[in-house]
Amino acid sequence: MFRKEIKVFDCTIRDGGLINNYHFSDKFVKAVYQALCKSGVDYMEIGKKLCVSDVYTREEYGKWNFCDEDDIKRVVDSYDGDYRPVLAVMYDVGRVDLSDLLPADQSVVGMIRTACYVGDIDKGLDLAKRTKDLGYETTINIMAPSAAIETDLIEALEQVNATPEVDYLYFVDSFGAFYSEQITAYLNLYKKHAPDKELGFHAHNNQQLAFSNTQQCIIEGVNMLDATVNGIGRGAGNCNLELLLNFLKNPKFDVRPIYRLIQDHMVDLRKEIEWGFNDIYGISGHLNQHPREAMKLRANEEKKDNCYDFLLESMGYPE
Amino acid sequence: MFRKEIKVFDCTIRDGGLINNYHFSDKFVKAVYQALCKSGVDYMEIGKKLCVSDVYTREEYGKWNFCDEDDIKRVVDSYDGDYRPVLAVMYDVGRVDLSDLLPADQSVVGMIRTACYVGDIDKGLDLAKRTKDLGYETTINIMAPSAAIETDLIEALEQVNATPEVDYLYFVDSFGAFYSEQITAYLNLYKKHAPDKELGFHAHNNQQLAFSNTQQCIIEGVNMLDATVNGIGRGAGNCNLELLLNFLKNPKFDVRPIYRLIQDHMVDLRKEIEWGFNDIYGISGHLNQHPREAMKLRANEEKKDNCYDFLLESMGYPE
Repeated sequence: MFRKEIKVFDCTIRDGGLINNYHFSDKFVKAVYQALCKSGVDYMEIGKKLCVSDVYTREEYGKWNFCDEDDIKRVVDSYDGDYRPVLAVMYDVGRVDLSDLLPADQSVVGMIRTACYVGDIDKGLDLAKRTKDLGYETTINIMAPSAAIETDLIEALEQVNATPEVDYLYFVDSFGAFYSEQITAYLNLYKKHAPDKELGFHAHNNQQLAFSNTQQCIIEGVNMLDATVNGIGRGAGNCNLELLLNFLKNPKFDVRPIYRLIQDHMVDLRKEIEWGFNDIYGISGHLNQHPREAMKLRANEEKKDNCYDFLLESMGYPE
Repeated sequence: MFRKEIKVFDCTIRDGGLINNYHFSDKFVKAVYQALCKSGVDYMEIGKKLCVSDVYTREEYGKWNFCDEDDIKRVVDSYDGDYRPVLAVMYDVGRVDLSDLLPADQSVVGMIRTACYVGDIDKGLDLAKRTKDLGYETTINIMAPSAAIETDLIEALEQVNATPEVDYLYFVDSFGAFYSEQITAYLNLYKKHAPDKELGFHAHNNQQLAFSNTQQCIIEGVNMLDATVNGIGRGAGNCNLELLLNFLKNPKFDVRPIYRLIQDHMVDLRKEIEWGFNDIYGISGHLNQHPREAMKLRANEEKKDNCYDFLLESMGYPE
């Protein structure tokens, strides 16, 4: 597949950080940045930009939960090549503070993505407007549309469409619940009710469909595609960046630095933290459930593979 | 997805046996059979039916490489429920002997699948005819069409179409190389040149696309769908039966016995033998290569995760 409008958005650090509270080493974050630079990926999301609080302390949470300008700069300065992806950070509604946000032209960050549920769309749009006013590229990532009542979702889509400050509207398969035909059906909804917005897609791999659903989105005209190296991300993880780059024929991309990153860094990381498809996430995805319960079970060393028990508990009735 | 014509074909033992030379315990094979009976799956392939030879000795190869009638009967007799899948065995061209094959009405086996490459289609069709003459349901599984020259493939498809003794024609993604749009394109070729044949599909999961490509086949009208429990199978394995049953809405299927089988048997088996997606198989699938080299690398404990090296060796040029 080649389409010049297609942009690849890496969220290795941001989504991967959800597994280990953003306690990545500087060495690892720099290696990811450098590999992405060399591979020609368009965007890199380097973390969340939350404000420090009693709940979100710097001790418990790693630096990529806060994305201080100086921390990012040290990563940027570790590489001396020409091409660099646009750097992005993620805002969570209710956990950010814009008062100390630099204007975009004074920051190494170029994009701020705001994630919110349908019910928080007004708060999300407020953040998108204010970050756009400071000069950033903006997105609204509406989470868990598979669990939203359709009339509410439509209203949110129409609000996004009426907000010129939003550059990209993301379709997010938070629960890893969608099959390809449902991807098409929901995208038709997004296109109908937010026809002025460029669309993005963020997958989860609960049913081994993150990559194929991303392909389905490409077929349906989506041009902003999220992926992570080795599919790292909370729970079942995301679309594998290396598989996506293999699929795309755009000559600006080079997959080799990504496989080198995997060989040199991800193989060891996989021994430390867990992500990716397994039976438990497959069930939670199929049942369109928040991965909370599945993740809780995976943390229980004794019961983590008890998929039959999990299925019965989740469905509520025995064999 | 519900379509009453859809049939699910389990090849857990047959494709899984390629990993361990068919050295499954009787207990395990019986547990698989019983779970498939309870789950309502239509067919179960219990192994290959090769003839014993100097190369294929009974010592080195397990009993499910030979599928003696009495061995199968012991499995069948271990279950006393009513519903049972049709039992199938696989024939490999050049490694079978029909002289001692019972007529179907005297055997517990109901279907014989013949696997062959495009170049061996005449030999494959000969086996299909002879097994049909003995009363079996028959298939031709043309392997590795992604590596065949199209004119040869078309000729083979036309020969299959002209052979009334073939009940099902299988489209086989031997190398795990196909993307969904290619699935559609190849199926169009199969439909055009073998319009009289009911089609089947057998996936491999090299690029995490076994399940999604099976869905794509369903969309395109394929009604015979191969899958294995937990996706067990050579190399990257197959389409996960449990994911497929989750997807299908046909009320004759019940996924719960499959998840119970996984919890009780597959979790332990996964510690003994390896199958499923990894970086190495992802590369071999993308490059449309026979998994031979990838499997060899995976057997090398020291180098098994050196995906960057494998990519460069496979592509033939450095970063």
